[in-house]
Amino acid sequence: MLDICLLGTGGMMPLPHRWLTALMTRFRGSNLLIDCGEGTQITMKLQGWSFKDIDQICFTHYHGDHISGLPGLLLSIGNSDRTEPITLIGPKGLLKVVNGLRVIAPELPFELKFIELEEDVQTIEINGYVIDAFKLKHKITCYGYSINILRQGKFDAIKAKELGLPVQYWSKLQHGETIVYNNKEYAPELVMGGVRKGLKVTYCTDTRPVDNMVYGAYEADLFICEGMYGEPTEQTNAVAYKHMTFQEAATIARDAKVEELWLTHFSPALVRPKEYLHVAKQIFTNTKIGKDRMTKTLKFSD
Amino acid sequence: MLDICLLGTGGMMPLPHRWLTALMTRFRGSNLLIDCGEGTQITMKLQGWSFKDIDQICFTHYHGDHISGLPGLLLSIGNSDRTEPITLIGPKGLLKVVNGLRVIAPELPFELKFIELEEDVQTIEINGYVIDAFKLKHKITCYGYSINILRQGKFDAIKAKELGLPVQYWSKLQHGETIVYNNKEYAPELVMGGVRKGLKVTYCTDTRPVDNMVYGAYEADLFICEGMYGEPTEQTNAVAYKHMTFQEAATIARDAKVEELWLTHFSPALVRPKEYLHVAKQIFTNTKIGKDRMTKTLKFSD
Repeated sequence: MLDICLLGTGGMMPLPHRWLTALMTRFRGSNLLIDCGEGTQITMKLQGWSFKDIDQICFTHYHGDHISGLPGLLLSIGNSDRTEPITLIGPKGLLKVVNGLRVIAPELPFELKFIELEEDVQTIEINGYVIDAFKLKHKITCYGYSINILRQGKFDAIKAKELGLPVQYWSKLQHGETIVYNNKEYAPELVMGGVRKGLKVTYCTDTRPVDNMVYGAYEADLFICEGMYGEPTEQTNAVAYKHMTFQEAATIARDAKVEELWLTHFSPALVRPKEYLHVAKQIFTNTKIGKDRMTKTLKFSD
Repeated sequence: MLDICLLGTGGMMPLPHRWLTALMTRFRGSNLLIDCGEGTQITMKLQGWSFKDIDQICFTHYHGDHISGLPGLLLSIGNSDRTEPITLIGPKGLLKVVNGLRVIAPELPFELKFIELEEDVQTIEINGYVIDAFKLKHKITCYGYSINILRQGKFDAIKAKELGLPVQYWSKLQHGETIVYNNKEYAPELVMGGVRKGLKVTYCTDTRPVDNMVYGAYEADLFICEGMYGEPTEQTNAVAYKHMTFQEAATIARDAKVEELWLTHFSPALVRPKEYLHVAKQIFTNTKIGKDRMTKTLKFSD
């Protein structure tokens, strides 16, 4: 079970009634955050999800609206008496940017670990999350992220019985261990079926449409994508400022065969994004306009 | 006429229904800000006062809750197409702290000027404001600020007539210029009365009570002071964390003979500060509990 919360839906600057775009997930007691703009800790508090349990924070890129809330969040986490390390993940320059911002948060009661992305496509496994980072196309280096929860094959109890394996060995096999019974080795593959469909949420902002997004979001249960501009007339601005229109986001969603698309990172000038929902729906039916603190729980299909 | 807005009233961390403590003033088209925590630009927007017209920003100290909103604000001001320089004023280390934070706001369309405070008490004149900075007592170097609008003496038209000075010279004299008429010099003092009472607002946070506050806030029209703790039982914490109780703030207000006291910078644990207002009022009657975006306009007395 993977809980997902879109903490905010704004781009560029925080507004009185629209927090900056950021994503939070919860999985088996470990929380993950993507991006942290000014005020992200406040919308998180409104949602009521614990920031003390944030074990990893991913950054798409280092524009202010995606990271300016980091020092404040770290200080607040520090005040919650957390002592376990937090892993920060982001494009090259992560250490420099975070150390710059930490001029106002020099002392924290927990360690920060850093993973700087170096490849165009890179996978990181951490606390049960399999994170695929893939390069996007913005004014500065920017990555999209797919958060995957893998699911192993189904345990075949009949097969285990046929092999004569006592019940007390089953759990080890289910957890991927090879066991020895009556001087004979039994590998998990003997009793475990093939890998089953897991859970996947993909998050892409800020970018022009690129092929990497189709691969990265492929068959995602939920695709959260920037739609800075709703009006089709804003295509020129989308190109100039390296952002996307609703149409472009919906096209990626369709090509990537995702289940559902949430649009986010709206321009401050786009006061009522809902007015342009139909533009996206013409291309990809299951599109929703993101709202601050919109949530969804992904569950394994069987 | 000096417009004053207490943009927020919180301390330590921004809360869903309480912005961090900061002050904004407007005087003759030039805005001044003291402190800029996470979210300050949002409450400013709710108030509707232009951040494009901020010509100077003063910092009390460099704890996150007083400066973490700076890079976001500078970026938003940049987006408003401001090109005139902004002067930043604060304790030693200003340049280092601001440059650290600017790792996410490296390019701005306006220049930043820096005034690092070096004396225990220091006066800066800028855009019609006379700013008195005075050292407080916190965990790190911290200053209080008095914002003064001076008022010159009253022009004595009868005297000017007696001297035989034609009307077209009066304005120059009123603006402090010495004029020459009929080969004779006339200094402004000949026709201008003594200096009259100006306007004064004093802002003090975060600190233990110190004598400097009494001198600094002396006879202020409005004294805005931290009261981190309302409960008199929190005295031990006030001492330990170098903050103040309502009682201590009221005592300074009384000793400094101010007109009015607004309490602010409440601890996140102090949910209903109003419950302790009576504690302060017993010492200084004209005390008010600060509220986000509480405003007041100070006018010359005659």
